[in-house]
Amino acid sequence: MSVELTTLPNGFRIVTEPMPGVSSAAVGLWIEAGARHEQEAQNGIAHFLEHMAFKGTARRTALQIAEEIEDVGGHINAYTSREMTAYYARVLRPDVGLALDVLADIVLNPRFEPREIEVERGVILQEIGQALDTPDDIIFDWLQETAYPSQPIGRSILGPSARVAGFGQQDLRAFVADHYRPGQTILSAAGAVDHDMLVRLAEPLFGHLAPSPALLPAPARFANGERRETRMLEQAHFALAIEGPSYRAPEFYTSQVYTGALGGSMSSRLFQRLREDRGLCYTVFAQSSAYCDTGAVTIYAGTGAEQIAELAALTIEELKRSAEDMSEPEIARARAQMKAGLLMGLESPAQRAERLAKLLSIWGRVPDISEAIARIDAVDVAGVRHHAEGLLAQSGMALALYGPIERAPRLAELSESLAA
Amino acid sequence: MSVELTTLPNGFRIVTEPMPGVSSAAVGLWIEAGARHEQEAQNGIAHFLEHMAFKGTARRTALQIAEEIEDVGGHINAYTSREMTAYYARVLRPDVGLALDVLADIVLNPRFEPREIEVERGVILQEIGQALDTPDDIIFDWLQETAYPSQPIGRSILGPSARVAGFGQQDLRAFVADHYRPGQTILSAAGAVDHDMLVRLAEPLFGHLAPSPALLPAPARFANGERRETRMLEQAHFALAIEGPSYRAPEFYTSQVYTGALGGSMSSRLFQRLREDRGLCYTVFAQSSAYCDTGAVTIYAGTGAEQIAELAALTIEELKRSAEDMSEPEIARARAQMKAGLLMGLESPAQRAERLAKLLSIWGRVPDISEAIARIDAVDVAGVRHHAEGLLAQSGMALALYGPIERAPRLAELSESLAA
Repeated sequence: MSVELTTLPNGFRIVTEPMPGVSSAAVGLWIEAGARHEQEAQNGIAHFLEHMAFKGTARRTALQIAEEIEDVGGHINAYTSREMTAYYARVLRPDVGLALDVLADIVLNPRFEPREIEVERGVILQEIGQALDTPDDIIFDWLQETAYPSQPIGRSILGPSARVAGFGQQDLRAFVADHYRPGQTILSAAGAVDHDMLVRLAEPLFGHLAPSPALLPAPARFANGERRETRMLEQAHFALAIEGPSYRAPEFYTSQVYTGALGGSMSSRLFQRLREDRGLCYTVFAQSSAYCDTGAVTIYAGTGAEQIAELAALTIEELKRSAEDMSEPEIARARAQMKAGLLMGLESPAQRAERLAKLLSIWGRVPDISEAIARIDAVDVAGVRHHAEGLLAQSGMALALYGPIERAPRLAELSESLAA
Repeated sequence: MSVELTTLPNGFRIVTEPMPGVSSAAVGLWIEAGARHEQEAQNGIAHFLEHMAFKGTARRTALQIAEEIEDVGGHINAYTSREMTAYYARVLRPDVGLALDVLADIVLNPRFEPREIEVERGVILQEIGQALDTPDDIIFDWLQETAYPSQPIGRSILGPSARVAGFGQQDLRAFVADHYRPGQTILSAAGAVDHDMLVRLAEPLFGHLAPSPALLPAPARFANGERRETRMLEQAHFALAIEGPSYRAPEFYTSQVYTGALGGSMSSRLFQRLREDRGLCYTVFAQSSAYCDTGAVTIYAGTGAEQIAELAALTIEELKRSAEDMSEPEIARARAQMKAGLLMGLESPAQRAERLAKLLSIWGRVPDISEAIARIDAVDVAGVRHHAEGLLAQSGMALALYGPIERAPRLAELSESLAA
């Protein structure tokens, strides 16, 4: 284990993991601020800010930012999630310092020029349009909104077009001032990297920032509800969520193994029943998504107008059955998949850098891989069945439907058959 | 360079590249048969066959295929392209032999049970529905069809629903008999693999297959044409193709560098002009796609109903301008990106195994990475400008438009301004 962590006096964290035999590096800044840190009137600003970081700094134009990284064959990108915003680059070994300098510059010194804000607004409105045109993308926004109505965690990351239309320089500056703080920022790098060098480079860039306490997001409250959007589409899209554990909860690994066995692979129950036995869908999966204080077991499938009722009924049947007869071989297989997936993910510098940042953010330390393996190995059938029973006992279930969904059951019917 | 290649007497090729420090392996079978090897009445059969491989063999049920790989934490998947079908698995080191046994079994001994064919037909019809519901997916099928009308290479990989509805066991057997031949099959593996072991395991599985000559697909003829589909969508989707070099053509690398500089990165001309300066789109890119006898320079962007005319005009402007003033720094940057991308791709066992198979299929050997680097380095501004001029001089251009496209120019207008 060669993970090294350095915390500067102001709380800024630097975590690295060199990978032998690798000639490139992934380096990035993970900031513990995302869409759920927004006030309602701010919805979309964290993501808008992520875009504006690339539109010019005190030292670099937008073109220079792109050119400096791409001149050396690297690439730079960013994403906004509900709890984090990440800015990251992939470069070859000699260019790690350059990548860090550019990343620090765009995060710390964005100009937010009014003209550039106007242009980027157009880009983001197109991004929103693209999401709306992609049914199996937008349905997850609707599911989230239904599961957490009128709450920061339930709002979309891109924000509604109407709000995006109104954001200005002051909105961007206010969000940065509140949330882009050294104690909430992690510099993470993996691959062809040297910890001491990175610390030496990062100190002058981030060490002078004044610490201030974190603004925590409002706690999430999972709700019961459904959203049905009828539209002429080829497929009826079905998405269901039940409250699950947060990523700090003891049963988090149980939930991951459970959703793996329920719908995480070709041998999983939902794949076998809905796709292999009945041919109802091409895409079907279950997953366990988690936040700092809550989580959800989510099921998605796309099917035909004539098949949506059967698909919904079989899904509920499998959810119920899983609490009764989930077997040891199925759980063993789901455990094996999680463990192998973990090991394979470690072979990619980008995945490894992201993993370091996320673990550090969740746990305040980077647990050894053997710790994760031990937690996965500790998941047993009794625990999984108990977890599945707990899901059935939840009072809330969120449902989103999109497409030719006239024959889809109502939420109340699904809840009833789940409880029956 | 540790690539090893063994060719069995019947033409079956085994290519491997061990990667030090890596504990997992990617192993797969690449078959030189895809959608363009289909007769018109067969359109969709190569892909249907790829699905049926997983639905049971003489020795394994569909569930057993999935379970055997997933029991050891691996995963198995497949894809069909226009010129190839690939079946591949990712496993940890001890399970490479198992992966090969399962892959060989599903490719050589599929049962094609009528009941399973019926079920899988439903799955594929849903897959077609999903593609039709995704505008920035389906538009590329329409572009391909427009560029190569009434030709095998122009048909969709999934096939039309009406044909998929009719396929039976005999259709599958006929395609296998014609195209799944030892001389057209490559076993490729990278990561935690041992060449001699793989050869020893592969010989009894594939060595007895009788060789027979390859059935070559009909040569491609690029055409002039447009397809316009008006639909109430958020975005107007725009895709344009001009004939480019095949992957064996001397100017293939020139074309790759050219499209990189034109629209392959943040610093590229189309990204800077359409997105960064004008805010017209979120996604915009140019790429050079290639086949054995032809290729295409393709540009895609999604924009608003009001902006589609401007976007089309600026795209044509950039295409023309690139023949006149593409500069050395831009070309140097595109070269650097291609080279770094190549090196970074080598860090992934899956990408490396795929690269080995494709290079072997194209060149009959696996050129050293230094050879690819030298070819990229040999691309200069004069060559790129010449290539760009050649594109402008083409008589054919294919255009596909989807969404609120009332204000989009006609193909004739675009062709005229390109030639002006």
